[in-house]
Amino acid sequence: MANNPTAHAFTDGELLAQALTHRSAGQPHNERLEFLGDAIVNLLAAEALYIAWPKADEGTLTRARAELVRESALAGIARTLDLGHQLRLGPGEMKSGGHRRDSILADAVEAVVGAIYLDAGLDACRRTALPWFAPLIEALPPPNRIGKDPKTALQEWLQARARSLPAYELVGESGEEHARIFTVACTVGDAETCGEGGSRRAAEQQAAAAMLARLESAKG
Amino acid sequence: MANNPTAHAFTDGELLAQALTHRSAGQPHNERLEFLGDAIVNLLAAEALYIAWPKADEGTLTRARAELVRESALAGIARTLDLGHQLRLGPGEMKSGGHRRDSILADAVEAVVGAIYLDAGLDACRRTALPWFAPLIEALPPPNRIGKDPKTALQEWLQARARSLPAYELVGESGEEHARIFTVACTVGDAETCGEGGSRRAAEQQAAAAMLARLESAKG
Repeated sequence: MANNPTAHAFTDGELLAQALTHRSAGQPHNERLEFLGDAIVNLLAAEALYIAWPKADEGTLTRARAELVRESALAGIARTLDLGHQLRLGPGEMKSGGHRRDSILADAVEAVVGAIYLDAGLDACRRTALPWFAPLIEALPPPNRIGKDPKTALQEWLQARARSLPAYELVGESGEEHARIFTVACTVGDAETCGEGGSRRAAEQQAAAAMLARLESAKG
Repeated sequence: MANNPTAHAFTDGELLAQALTHRSAGQPHNERLEFLGDAIVNLLAAEALYIAWPKADEGTLTRARAELVRESALAGIARTLDLGHQLRLGPGEMKSGGHRRDSILADAVEAVVGAIYLDAGLDACRRTALPWFAPLIEALPPPNRIGKDPKTALQEWLQARARSLPAYELVGESGEEHARIFTVACTVGDAETCGEGGSRRAAEQQAAAAMLARLESAKG
C-alpha cells in the first residue's frame, strides 16, 4: 500500500494506491478518480466561498473558485503534501520528471479527493481537503477585485477615493528583436512604480500592480 | 412560501422561495444558490456516471457529464417539474416570457438543488435530484459514441464490422438564397437515408444519424 500523504485514514487502501497511480504506470490508474475528485474539489471550493463571502455575487464567486481550482493552485497543494514522491509513474514519465509536472500533480490531488469520497463520503473530503485550500482562500484578493486585471483594479481604487487617474509612460526597451523587454512607469501623484514585461501592456499591468500594493500598504 | 415543486420537504421554506426568485424580482434572489447548486449538480452527474459506466475513461465521462448538465437538459428538467410557473420574475421578464426561457429555467434548477443542499445536505440532494437525471442518463448514447458527431459514429460503426464506408450525395437544394435548405442522401450498401439542413454538412450529419439508427434497429 502507498504511504498516505493525507490526513484521512483510508478503510480501503487500494483506493489511495489507485489515486497515486498515473496512467503511465498502468491499470488501475487515477483518471476516473480524478474525474470524480474534480467535481468534489469544485463543490468544496464553491461551498467555502459561499460561506466566506456572504455578500459576493455569482460572478465574483465564480472567478474566485476558478482561482482556487486552477492547475497551478492544485499543484501547489500537491507540493505541500509532497504528493510527487508518492506517485507511481511509468519509466518514461519518471525520467522526464513527471512527478514535478503541474498537470500530473494537480490531477493526483483531485484523484486523492475522489478516493476519499469513495472511501468515506463528502464530510471526510471536507475535513481532509478544506484545510488544503484555507491558505489559498486567505490569499485571494478582496471580492471586489477578484479576476480583475491590475490596471482596472488600480483605476477603480483611485476612483473610489476621488483621486486622479494614473499615467503610464514607456521608459525603456531592451533585448533582442524577438525578445523585447518593455519598461513602463506608472505615476499617481508623487508616487512612481515600474513594471517590466514582454509587451507594453504587460509592463503596464505589472507597474499598476506595484502601485496598488504601495497605495494599500501606505493606507496601513 | 412558494409552492414546492420538488420531492424534498424543506425545513427552511425561505430557501426554496429564494431559489425560485429570479434576480429581476429583487433581493434575495437565486444567483448565489445557483452558484452552489451548479457544483452539486455537477457532482451528482459525475457520481452517477462513475457508477453507471464502470469502464468508461475520463474523456468519455467528461463528455457524458456535459450532456447531462447543459442548459437545455436542465431546462427540460425544470419543465418536467413545472418550475416555470413557480418562478418569481420582475415585470419585464414576466412580459417577455422569462419563465419559458432555457437559461432562467436551468438556473432555477441549479438554485433549487443549492437550496436543498443548504437545507439538508448532499444526501437529500441525491435523493431528490438524481431521479430528475435518470431519464437523461438512460437516453445517453453508448459510452463509445458519446460526444461524437453522427458521421464519425457511423463510420466507426461500419469499420468495426468491416463494412464499406457510406457515400454522401447532394440530392437537392431549395429555399431563398439567405435560407437555403440542402438535402443529402447517405448510402450504405442497399440502404439509403436522407438528411436536410442549412448547410451541406448539417444535412450529411442528419442523414448519417438516420442511417445509424436504421442499421442499429436492423441488428436489434
